[in-house]
Amino acid sequence: MVNINTISLNRSTLERLLTYYHFINHHHLQHSVGGTISSAQIAELSGIDDTQIRKDFAVIGVKGRSRVGFIVTEVVHAICHALGFDVTTPSVVIGAGRLGGAIAAYKGFVKQGLNIAALFDINPEKIGLIIGDHVVQPLEQLDIIIKQHAVRLAILTVPAGAAQDITDRLIKAGIKAIWNFSPTSLNIPREIIVRNERLAVGLAELTYHLKQNSQ
Amino acid sequence: MVNINTISLNRSTLERLLTYYHFINHHHLQHSVGGTISSAQIAELSGIDDTQIRKDFAVIGVKGRSRVGFIVTEVVHAICHALGFDVTTPSVVIGAGRLGGAIAAYKGFVKQGLNIAALFDINPEKIGLIIGDHVVQPLEQLDIIIKQHAVRLAILTVPAGAAQDITDRLIKAGIKAIWNFSPTSLNIPREIIVRNERLAVGLAELTYHLKQNSQ
Repeated sequence: MVNINTISLNRSTLERLLTYYHFINHHHLQHSVGGTISSAQIAELSGIDDTQIRKDFAVIGVKGRSRVGFIVTEVVHAICHALGFDVTTPSVVIGAGRLGGAIAAYKGFVKQGLNIAALFDINPEKIGLIIGDHVVQPLEQLDIIIKQHAVRLAILTVPAGAAQDITDRLIKAGIKAIWNFSPTSLNIPREIIVRNERLAVGLAELTYHLKQNSQ
Repeated sequence: MVNINTISLNRSTLERLLTYYHFINHHHLQHSVGGTISSAQIAELSGIDDTQIRKDFAVIGVKGRSRVGFIVTEVVHAICHALGFDVTTPSVVIGAGRLGGAIAAYKGFVKQGLNIAALFDINPEKIGLIIGDHVVQPLEQLDIIIKQHAVRLAILTVPAGAAQDITDRLIKAGIKAIWNFSPTSLNIPREIIVRNERLAVGLAELTYHLKQNSQ
């Protein structure tokens, strides 16, 4: 039996596991007759190599049965367990602009365990507004809400100039991970997990290749 | 003289160029006294190695002058030229939900040459709404607007189930690049440039590491 708690998954593996998860959900395979699926079927749907799929499943402790394949609910549970979707992640969104609102209201992330405790903004005109199911809170409430809800993740959607100050404040308040959508790099202690979503890089990649192709 | 049109930049280089660009803008270095900057100064601000910075600048044809350093406006122009920010990229946003609206209204992308010609949605209740400076259009207008504005880039923010159909339609209408925010993979001909922003992967990475750390 693989002990999922001791294995470490790299980004490519995480990405593939999430791809299987999305394909299974998207094609409603949980409800498929017999409730089983072969790696060949997933390979056909996802374009990922058959052998790779069996390896990935083995890593997260899912065993196929000969002539039956994999039991879909087992696969889904194992992926959710490996990626931490079976645990609720209490979170706050900092910046109640359009992007912050989009993230707070997106139901897809709820399936991944994301639980938004509150949205915050510095702009007095935004405080009290309702976005999704949340009332926008003033920053003065940050510490108390983080404590009350045992918030571990902060989602940062503030302008670049405000990002470092609020990051320092979040870490002081006990945040363990930051999902950074602000277009800037952050100075963060080693023990804090950070993921930078640099959308500007994605756009730069596209405009760069478009320009190359038009020459 | 480096001919920027013949060089090819990988993703890491694009990412670093964009980092320099953001640091220069963020610290208003264009207006610095004398208008020059040394690679050591950029290294200190960005945390990127001095030697790497000089290499990157050389690749895009920017030469330093001894005891003076780099002229800031030259650096900015070279980066914008290399990444295609000096060319307007006419674009459409498909899906006028919160995320589509956030992208269409975000001024930061305008500096990168992004020019949103129109937002589209399939939902009759959204058509005619004003988001940012744009009136939401029905999909029937897609072909005509793509032709009229010589649109090359489509930004996809529709649900996973709708993504492939609309992608096929966009490619038929003459789109050359797709910025995909829909949580699914797309079947796309080789000649079309695609960039998948898999936000769900970012979140999975965070929830995975949070879970690992709490054990």
